[in-house]
Amino acid sequence: MTEPEPARLLRDLVGEGRATIPQLLAARAARTPEAAFLLHRSRSWSYAQAWRESLRFAGFLEGSISESDRVASYLANAPEALWTWFGTLASGRVHVSINRAHRGLVLSDMLARSRAALLVTDRAAWPLLPELRDRGFRNILFIDEVPEAARSSELAVWSWDNVVSSGDGACRATDPAAAATVIFTSGTTGRSKAVRLPHNMYCRGGAHVAEAFGFRAEDVFHAWLPLAHIAGQLHITMSAIAAGASLALCKTFSRTRFWEEVAEARATVFAGLSNLLSMLLMEPERPGEARNSLRIGLIGNPPPALQAAFERRFGVTIRDTYGMTECEPLTLPAAGQPPGSCGRSGPDFEIAIHDSQDRPVHPGAIGRIVMRPRVPDVMMQAYEGDEEATVAAWRNLWFHTQDLGRLDEAGFLFFIERLKDSIRRGGENVSPAEVEQTLSLHPDVEACAVVGVADPLVGEEVKAAIVLKPAATVDAAGIRRFASSRMASFMVPR
Amino acid sequence: MTEPEPARLLRDLVGEGRATIPQLLAARAARTPEAAFLLHRSRSWSYAQAWRESLRFAGFLEGSISESDRVASYLANAPEALWTWFGTLASGRVHVSINRAHRGLVLSDMLARSRAALLVTDRAAWPLLPELRDRGFRNILFIDEVPEAARSSELAVWSWDNVVSSGDGACRATDPAAAATVIFTSGTTGRSKAVRLPHNMYCRGGAHVAEAFGFRAEDVFHAWLPLAHIAGQLHITMSAIAAGASLALCKTFSRTRFWEEVAEARATVFAGLSNLLSMLLMEPERPGEARNSLRIGLIGNPPPALQAAFERRFGVTIRDTYGMTECEPLTLPAAGQPPGSCGRSGPDFEIAIHDSQDRPVHPGAIGRIVMRPRVPDVMMQAYEGDEEATVAAWRNLWFHTQDLGRLDEAGFLFFIERLKDSIRRGGENVSPAEVEQTLSLHPDVEACAVVGVADPLVGEEVKAAIVLKPAATVDAAGIRRFASSRMASFMVPR
Repeated sequence: MTEPEPARLLRDLVGEGRATIPQLLAARAARTPEAAFLLHRSRSWSYAQAWRESLRFAGFLEGSISESDRVASYLANAPEALWTWFGTLASGRVHVSINRAHRGLVLSDMLARSRAALLVTDRAAWPLLPELRDRGFRNILFIDEVPEAARSSELAVWSWDNVVSSGDGACRATDPAAAATVIFTSGTTGRSKAVRLPHNMYCRGGAHVAEAFGFRAEDVFHAWLPLAHIAGQLHITMSAIAAGASLALCKTFSRTRFWEEVAEARATVFAGLSNLLSMLLMEPERPGEARNSLRIGLIGNPPPALQAAFERRFGVTIRDTYGMTECEPLTLPAAGQPPGSCGRSGPDFEIAIHDSQDRPVHPGAIGRIVMRPRVPDVMMQAYEGDEEATVAAWRNLWFHTQDLGRLDEAGFLFFIERLKDSIRRGGENVSPAEVEQTLSLHPDVEACAVVGVADPLVGEEVKAAIVLKPAATVDAAGIRRFASSRMASFMVPR
Repeated sequence: MTEPEPARLLRDLVGEGRATIPQLLAARAARTPEAAFLLHRSRSWSYAQAWRESLRFAGFLEGSISESDRVASYLANAPEALWTWFGTLASGRVHVSINRAHRGLVLSDMLARSRAALLVTDRAAWPLLPELRDRGFRNILFIDEVPEAARSSELAVWSWDNVVSSGDGACRATDPAAAATVIFTSGTTGRSKAVRLPHNMYCRGGAHVAEAFGFRAEDVFHAWLPLAHIAGQLHITMSAIAAGASLALCKTFSRTRFWEEVAEARATVFAGLSNLLSMLLMEPERPGEARNSLRIGLIGNPPPALQAAFERRFGVTIRDTYGMTECEPLTLPAAGQPPGSCGRSGPDFEIAIHDSQDRPVHPGAIGRIVMRPRVPDVMMQAYEGDEEATVAAWRNLWFHTQDLGRLDEAGFLFFIERLKDSIRRGGENVSPAEVEQTLSLHPDVEACAVVGVADPLVGEEVKAAIVLKPAATVDAAGIRRFASSRMASFMVPR
């Protein structure tokens, strides 16, 4: 067995085909210290400054928590979210991302499962948080202002001033095989899974994305994908670092502000699911719209007609990868890619299609998409706290995706549909069980069932069928109000 | 990906490259019903009779326990051990093997972890058994006589008469991927692991062993390897069934009776670890000893000089396979095999040598032996109740053995040595932690440490270093006596 083609960019930067996230950032900061890494509102940070901010955060951790403590963040996209991420990793600690959109039971459960000692969040999050001491936290850090009420909690309360005034910490992340992050993703049944990922997956994955998409130092990414997601972390942030490109960080995707933001940052790269193409195509045409700065879009699984219409109208090339939080990127764009395919397996993965008995099907036949890594430390280490689900997903030493697909004779993968019962709403995985659990807390709800229904804009919409108790008075709007205050808005049934 | 070469014998017998254990036995009974399957003392059973005995045991289970109940056996080699095994599997239930040599804490722990409702054992075992109700058992079946004391227990007590008087049960084992057995094997640290294995591993494995060793219907196996072990189950019993050969069942290996037993059964095949060759070579020469009936020996990892001496003196061909309870047989004999090699990977497995970072080493270099299956359901499903250890052993979707080895340019595997701290004494894996746990129960023992030391006859001998309490009076013989009554004899420190 020979080693597969290494990620050239990675080897070029760190001298090896594997690295930790901080090693890659540090190597980039040494190579092009003055190049812009981050653009946010009117401010910008060079690679050297970004590395400095990260070491300062590592220094803050040295003075506030112990060596083996994990750090959780519950943040929208912001520069501080990046420094928290990089700084935590540089300090040798594990970082747990919680999507800032989560609320209620789900948020509370994820906080408990994070096994973190410090929560990094913002002032507006404070009223949404459950009792943190009960979930193992001893510290909270606010990236904006410290709310008065937090001071009377039993937690050690920190402000970003404490970070800014810290000395530089040491970079202790030297093992590419070590755990870097935990990301929550919805499971087939029951609650979200805590996916633990190693450093090397980010570094090789980011380098492969940068190479396959042809990203270069001049590129500016319109970076709105949540940093709490694998795509925001790997496809955007890590591939930008591998290429030496810049991130123009946005808090979220806005159909109305998108072209303004692109123009202002002179963005050349954007990303999202195919619903993003639909939304932008539905906007009325504007004069000169084809003379935008974008050159390439990294878009998940676009229908060929939609892709062609978008490319024609806006003069932008759309390319796809296929993967999931557990292992990214499974496929990369390749020469000769037929329409509707999501590319060919990247150098780090072997992809196959299996029947229900876990046997390979004939080329062209439809079955479950499965994969094996060709190099170490490029996939999840475990569903944390759910080793039985890990073993089940790894049966016969293949990772079993929850997707149906087919491979053509040339090895191009076609995604057919999802096998699992989670709902995919606008790029977010929604666990029906988690929505049901919250809805059943409503005093008027006797029973409920949550399913996904096809939706042209967001792919799947969340639908709840509810049996009310006798004499119940609540209506659909009332249920939605109840749900909105207790779960992420993307989970609320419409 | 094309399917690897199927097990021809298996495909020939059941029409497919996969099967359940009862499907294979039933197919053999249909093909050669009158051929002898089992020889034991003065009795013999044809394949048709063996299948009948198995269905009768399945019928007994229908009348005594519920459908999902497991059956554990704590038996020495005996015909009833085979009917218990096959009948339990035919009934669609899982069979748990506990080596009859275990005693005390280890036995008690294995019984509890078996999650079985019925224990099949013998009269002499009764005084060794802990309170079975506390370990989840509701039934006990004695294959010989029911001890009087058992009748007053809270268990339903059955005798083999109840089995004999049962009607035939149905064969419900139709899924080759289903769990068939649980076997306990020593782990790297701590207690033994409960290895759960699917039917298909036995059927393909047995067929591949039969093909690679050239077993045929005329062969008679000198079958002393414990039926509670993977080798007794797969390499001996299943390969004999695949070939349509006969088993001459012995309770244990006896250096003094071996040649008599071989002559009496006209045995052509024997098996064991290389210490068996040493023991037989140390016996004084007897006239005509080279004119024995044996033609082939399946011997684990024999040193080349020992193998050559044995082959020369007794006119027997010695061949090797490499594997472990979790996956068998990883290698098979092949043409051109160099001395000292344990063969080439069988068609069902890919074998590689990895460095400490889980990367393949250059051909010829030494590293950890790792494997991936090429077909489904030919390896363990999990270390039951220890999914974390399973995930660790399966990292990067390779099964990590605890052995060092190397592969030559032609793909022949050379076993170098074990990485794990378990002791390999005469074919049995001994967990030092389990021995230490029992020794520390002795009132005079303050602390103890158990290690393996090289031994020419049994490979490794068990050695205990013991710190006595002040004023302790016990001596080494006293400790050995204490240990002998509380653990398998192969675990007792010498």
